[in-house]
Amino acid sequence: MSEQTIQLGHGGGGLMSRDLIQSEIVTRFGGGMLKGLPDGATLPMPAGRELVFTTDSFVVQPLEFPGGTIGDLAVHGTVNDLAVCGAVPRWLSLSLILEEGLPLSTLRRVLDSVKRTADDCGVSVVTGDTKVVARGQCDGVYINTSGIGEKMDEFDLSAGRVSPGDHILVSGSVGDHGMAVLAAREGIRITHGVVSDTGPVHRLVQASRPFARDVKFMRDPTRGGLASVLNEVVEDQAAGILLNEAAIPFSSGAKGVAEMLGVDLLQVASEGRMIMIVAASASEAVLSAWRSLPEGRDAARIGVVTDKKGRVILETLTGGHRLVDVPRGELLPRIC
Amino acid sequence: MSEQTIQLGHGGGGLMSRDLIQSEIVTRFGGGMLKGLPDGATLPMPAGRELVFTTDSFVVQPLEFPGGTIGDLAVHGTVNDLAVCGAVPRWLSLSLILEEGLPLSTLRRVLDSVKRTADDCGVSVVTGDTKVVARGQCDGVYINTSGIGEKMDEFDLSAGRVSPGDHILVSGSVGDHGMAVLAAREGIRITHGVVSDTGPVHRLVQASRPFARDVKFMRDPTRGGLASVLNEVVEDQAAGILLNEAAIPFSSGAKGVAEMLGVDLLQVASEGRMIMIVAASASEAVLSAWRSLPEGRDAARIGVVTDKKGRVILETLTGGHRLVDVPRGELLPRIC
Repeated sequence: MSEQTIQLGHGGGGLMSRDLIQSEIVTRFGGGMLKGLPDGATLPMPAGRELVFTTDSFVVQPLEFPGGTIGDLAVHGTVNDLAVCGAVPRWLSLSLILEEGLPLSTLRRVLDSVKRTADDCGVSVVTGDTKVVARGQCDGVYINTSGIGEKMDEFDLSAGRVSPGDHILVSGSVGDHGMAVLAAREGIRITHGVVSDTGPVHRLVQASRPFARDVKFMRDPTRGGLASVLNEVVEDQAAGILLNEAAIPFSSGAKGVAEMLGVDLLQVASEGRMIMIVAASASEAVLSAWRSLPEGRDAARIGVVTDKKGRVILETLTGGHRLVDVPRGELLPRIC
Repeated sequence: MSEQTIQLGHGGGGLMSRDLIQSEIVTRFGGGMLKGLPDGATLPMPAGRELVFTTDSFVVQPLEFPGGTIGDLAVHGTVNDLAVCGAVPRWLSLSLILEEGLPLSTLRRVLDSVKRTADDCGVSVVTGDTKVVARGQCDGVYINTSGIGEKMDEFDLSAGRVSPGDHILVSGSVGDHGMAVLAAREGIRITHGVVSDTGPVHRLVQASRPFARDVKFMRDPTRGGLASVLNEVVEDQAAGILLNEAAIPFSSGAKGVAEMLGVDLLQVASEGRMIMIVAASASEAVLSAWRSLPEGRDAARIGVVTDKKGRVILETLTGGHRLVDVPRGELLPRIC
């Protein structure tokens, strides 16, 4: 293509659209089902297997931040949603909303990161869509990825199975993604070196598979952070949660930015972490399996399930206790 | 909710997000799998059936236009993509990007139309996502719907099967959607009364099922219109197409607006029409089956497949012949 930025005509369904799709999408994703560009992808189904279906739109700003781009964030986000539902991620759709004037070089870097991340996660982009809106009607690129995975039979996941004595595990430091994006936006990244944790959790799920019957709940703590996920678990349940602040892994970079801005890291999004609630008897085995993976190297047991109905309590470093609240509104807009 | 417009906090993953999802999404779509708001929906799969997976983002402006809204456009668009791939539409995801300041009343009307249209098409919204961006970072509402359908075994669809002598059928007038949106945008709707054709085509596919082995190709002519779809069919094929202008159904409203603006209706989007290429022997049977449905009442045979390799020719009302071109860029931005 001769144009070096996205034009409205790239979204019109005519020759310019076809050129864009051929040169940027088919070259990257057209090896398989996407080749003939049908309106939909036909997927072979293994007999009698349940599927998991999920969707996420991504509007993160900036499009590129320390540790990742909107492209790998989208793939990880959808892969992770499938994984925490107990599914093996298989197929993704990729739908782009592009702003007129977007540099093609930016689009290419984003698509490269989608491709690289999908390959790393073992998922295929099989169908897609591209729209273009005029300048000022979106902010560079918005991406929707929907995903389909094959449910693993072993897992029986539900907040209702969580009971006092169960252990709360986390696969690594929390809040890095939110702090990295915020720092990039505020121009403070150089001082503190905080890097997004954007990454996949499906290998952590695979590693837990031998202990599946002792796994009661899993979730990746995105918007609203650890605080939102744990409060959601115990909402309307007979159980509560006691967290041990000393045991929660935080990176020094995220801590630095959070302190500077007065933000509670428990309420900040991660994009490549797993929270799992397991029977106490399986806790060490799961942690040890996780720690054998790079993405689980800093895994830790951070708390226990209690009988304090519906309450999430933090035992602080100084031995005090405080309630862990769900944030009300928006701490950090456009974090994912 | 007390707020009467969308706030950034509605997208933050905290209490405001939960309130919005509970009051606007769960009340409409929470009867089934969406009830517990898991990260993904678990779908029961009939053994050995292939699936079709598709995605579309919708950025139409205005959000409400004569004949429809962005909500029913999204459902119809995804249902139709599944249908023309030879699948029975089953499940949809619904992902919203909302602009800060959007009136809640507008959101409610859009969601009502999603719900009503999904019910009419026999599909369930089973998973979703909601993001909020600041004022000026989108234009009211953008919607992504991805869909899963169950493939029907009977159809064997491919442009390669199209051969000279086959008939080209269309299920109704073409170009109404594009002209209705444009007219609404330009404020000329009252004079000409053009109404969008937004609607489902899956019942037309069902009606053709008894003749499936004679159906070679089907597609709904959206962006780029009839011209784009038919050129795509014969691209790189040994066949060509001869259209008969006198036989192509146009509504008087769409014709009026197109003439006023100097637009070629063959290049204008429909959002509820079907183009089908069938063996000549099955053509009357399919037309008659279509005409028994409200959405197929104006169905017509509009042309034949020729041996003029790769060329789409129109025989005009005056008996002349002209080439039907694919539009190059963007005639009508944000039509869907």
